Amino acid sequence: MILSPLAPAGFPRLPPIAGVELGTVAAGIRKKERTDVLVAKFAPGTSVAGVFTRSLCPAAPVEWCRRIIEAGDGTARALVCNSGNANAFTGKAGEVSTELTAITVASSLGVPADSVFVASTGVIGEPMPDDRLTAAIPTLLSGLVAAGSEGWEQAAAAIRTTDTFSKGAYAPIPGTGASVVGIAKGSGMIAPDMATMLGFVFTDLGIAPEILQESLTASVNKSFNRITVDSDTSTNDTVLLFATGAGADEPITSREDPRMEALQGALEAVTLDLAHQIIRDGEGATKFVAVNVTGAASEESAAAIARSVANSPLVKTALAAGDANWGRVVMAVGKAGQPANRDKLAIWIGPEQVAASGAVLDGYREEVAAAHLAHDEVEITIDVGVGEHEATVWTCDLTHGYIEINAGYRT
Amino acid sequence: MILSPLAPAGFPRLPPIAGVELGTVAAGIRKKERTDVLVAKFAPGTSVAGVFTRSLCPAAPVEWCRRIIEAGDGTARALVCNSGNANAFTGKAGEVSTELTAITVASSLGVPADSVFVASTGVIGEPMPDDRLTAAIPTLLSGLVAAGSEGWEQAAAAIRTTDTFSKGAYAPIPGTGASVVGIAKGSGMIAPDMATMLGFVFTDLGIAPEILQESLTASVNKSFNRITVDSDTSTNDTVLLFATGAGADEPITSREDPRMEALQGALEAVTLDLAHQIIRDGEGATKFVAVNVTGAASEESAAAIARSVANSPLVKTALAAGDANWGRVVMAVGKAGQPANRDKLAIWIGPEQVAASGAVLDGYREEVAAAHLAHDEVEITIDVGVGEHEATVWTCDLTHGYIEINAGYRT
Repeated sequence: MILSPLAPAGFPRLPPIAGVELGTVAAGIRKKERTDVLVAKFAPGTSVAGVFTRSLCPAAPVEWCRRIIEAGDGTARALVCNSGNANAFTGKAGEVSTELTAITVASSLGVPADSVFVASTGVIGEPMPDDRLTAAIPTLLSGLVAAGSEGWEQAAAAIRTTDTFSKGAYAPIPGTGASVVGIAKGSGMIAPDMATMLGFVFTDLGIAPEILQESLTASVNKSFNRITVDSDTSTNDTVLLFATGAGADEPITSREDPRMEALQGALEAVTLDLAHQIIRDGEGATKFVAVNVTGAASEESAAAIARSVANSPLVKTALAAGDANWGRVVMAVGKAGQPANRDKLAIWIGPEQVAASGAVLDGYREEVAAAHLAHDEVEITIDVGVGEHEATVWTCDLTHGYIEINAGYRT
Repeated sequence: MILSPLAPAGFPRLPPIAGVELGTVAAGIRKKERTDVLVAKFAPGTSVAGVFTRSLCPAAPVEWCRRIIEAGDGTARALVCNSGNANAFTGKAGEVSTELTAITVASSLGVPADSVFVASTGVIGEPMPDDRLTAAIPTLLSGLVAAGSEGWEQAAAAIRTTDTFSKGAYAPIPGTGASVVGIAKGSGMIAPDMATMLGFVFTDLGIAPEILQESLTASVNKSFNRITVDSDTSTNDTVLLFATGAGADEPITSREDPRMEALQGALEAVTLDLAHQIIRDGEGATKFVAVNVTGAASEESAAAIARSVANSPLVKTALAAGDANWGRVVMAVGKAGQPANRDKLAIWIGPEQVAASGAVLDGYREEVAAAHLAHDEVEITIDVGVGEHEATVWTCDLTHGYIEINAGYRT
């Protein structure tokens, strides 16, 4: 696998998170001699929040996590994730397999099964070889180590599939001794063979479950829900946030806690960083693209217009060619079905204003726009002229590389 | 331009339509020595119906046609279409230009301006050189000929942009001496440089305007609205239906007229034939793909699920590779957001059933599915297990050719 040209320089040094132990193993779930299982063990009292795919055909582990979050008391004691088999579209056998995995980990650790979170990514529609997974669990659990820099990198590697680099990020929570650390994987929004989006985020601050869920939902809405590679949605997309409370700080139990703003800022920084790394690993991507929409009727409307532009194959192919084809941007704004004033529409490509009042700007310099588009980080800004709200969606270009990767026969 | 590998053998022989006269000319609107203007003149009493893009940033001619249909008495005396400039995103100047075009044709013919329909396709955001268009009109109008086989082919050629072949279709209206003839253009749902979808349909049967509109809307919903090349929607998409009443038959003035069924059948045959030809000319297409959805909660729901599958870049790249990747089909069903029972989902690739009850079918023969996908006409059928309704959406595969065509710099 060739490293994405948009990859960061290397995996970041991530701090320890008190109350998290990590272990990885090569269980041979799909390919031999490739680390493909991650287990994280959490201190007693760890609270959990989750956000899952909106797919109506979700994979069995997604249904499991959703169920134990809804029915449970908001605590988590372990996470087990495999990157060989998605356990999606596997019928009743898939459900049994997920439950079996949770029970095996739970009984080994002496914790309730409904405190064990399960995530899967990999090939779709093939029976999950849970025997290989459960056989590997005793070794895995006996070798757990406190989460520190090396452990994080191994954990991030263990959940990769078609990713060309491991993804990690962290932020301190100012005013506390605690941090937020996250790892993620994904390179298409989905390639069902291998490319679900998973994000696991950890903090050593203690946070009450209902507050944790609100915080996670808010930060996902501004990060993972604001990126798109190819408009396709996985059956397995999962983001889980674990708050161990094992640091020295007092737990957050009220929304009025003065540390909430710092926590939210750190969460948003980490989830946005991870989301951007997924775009930087977008299948075939050669450009990292920010689509800003301003002047919209609401933030949701701004995001919907930005997503319409970011998903348009015609916009994305133009970006691949470095073509300042703002006509395609107009088309994509028009098809979004959101409030926009055609006769007030204004467009910028990088620093260069291209259009104003619904027509090309007199004196627009195509060479300046083209020079901006020659970079590997580019920006399109659209003011739709109806309100005060704005949003940004991040995407990548659509290239021969995407076709190459996805039109290859499964092997 | 290389002929699409899915092109029909040749342009069909189309019958005359009484009450229609045609003329074409090379007006040099964008390129020299290329026929780029079509005028059709209609007999007095011709009624008209129209269906237009849902884009919220429509081109000036779309707004003009919509306005004169809504405000007018449902009659049309002429159609003028240019294929050099879309007159989209051209601000107030674009509106003036459209009106000027209509007035010029109207005054030359001695008919009201609001009976002259205008359509445009071509480059977006560049001022419309209406002087070249209006200068060509006297010559054009003096050379009109009754619509017959050769005239139709020239008319179909005059509205082409990136199309690799001219598109025409016809059907007799059984029980009458009248026919329906249609011409169309389009090869992406849009490529704003050049590839709006236009369809013009003509019949010599007389039909009251309100009945004509219902008939056109119903047939467009089953044809042009059931195709997708790349999910992108043009600023200029227009379908117009003209009923001259110049044949020998009595006009239809009531929905209870016994000829309504025959009319509707002929209209649907012609619009579906044209819609399929647009898919056969899809940018980069190497396969003509039917996506059938059955067992849905409603016809609209079936169409929405089929469209989600037909628009998925991952499904389309798999089809390009002849890969029987039904996992991507499951993913696309899941993201449609429509009622579907994951545990009853069944999938066929051509004649071979791949999945039943939400999992791979025991004994599924991948080589049979792969053999079907090696053809250039392929079919995917999905039963979503919640109801009795069905729909089909047609699309093409996503290939390097699409990237090649759309990532080329505008020249």
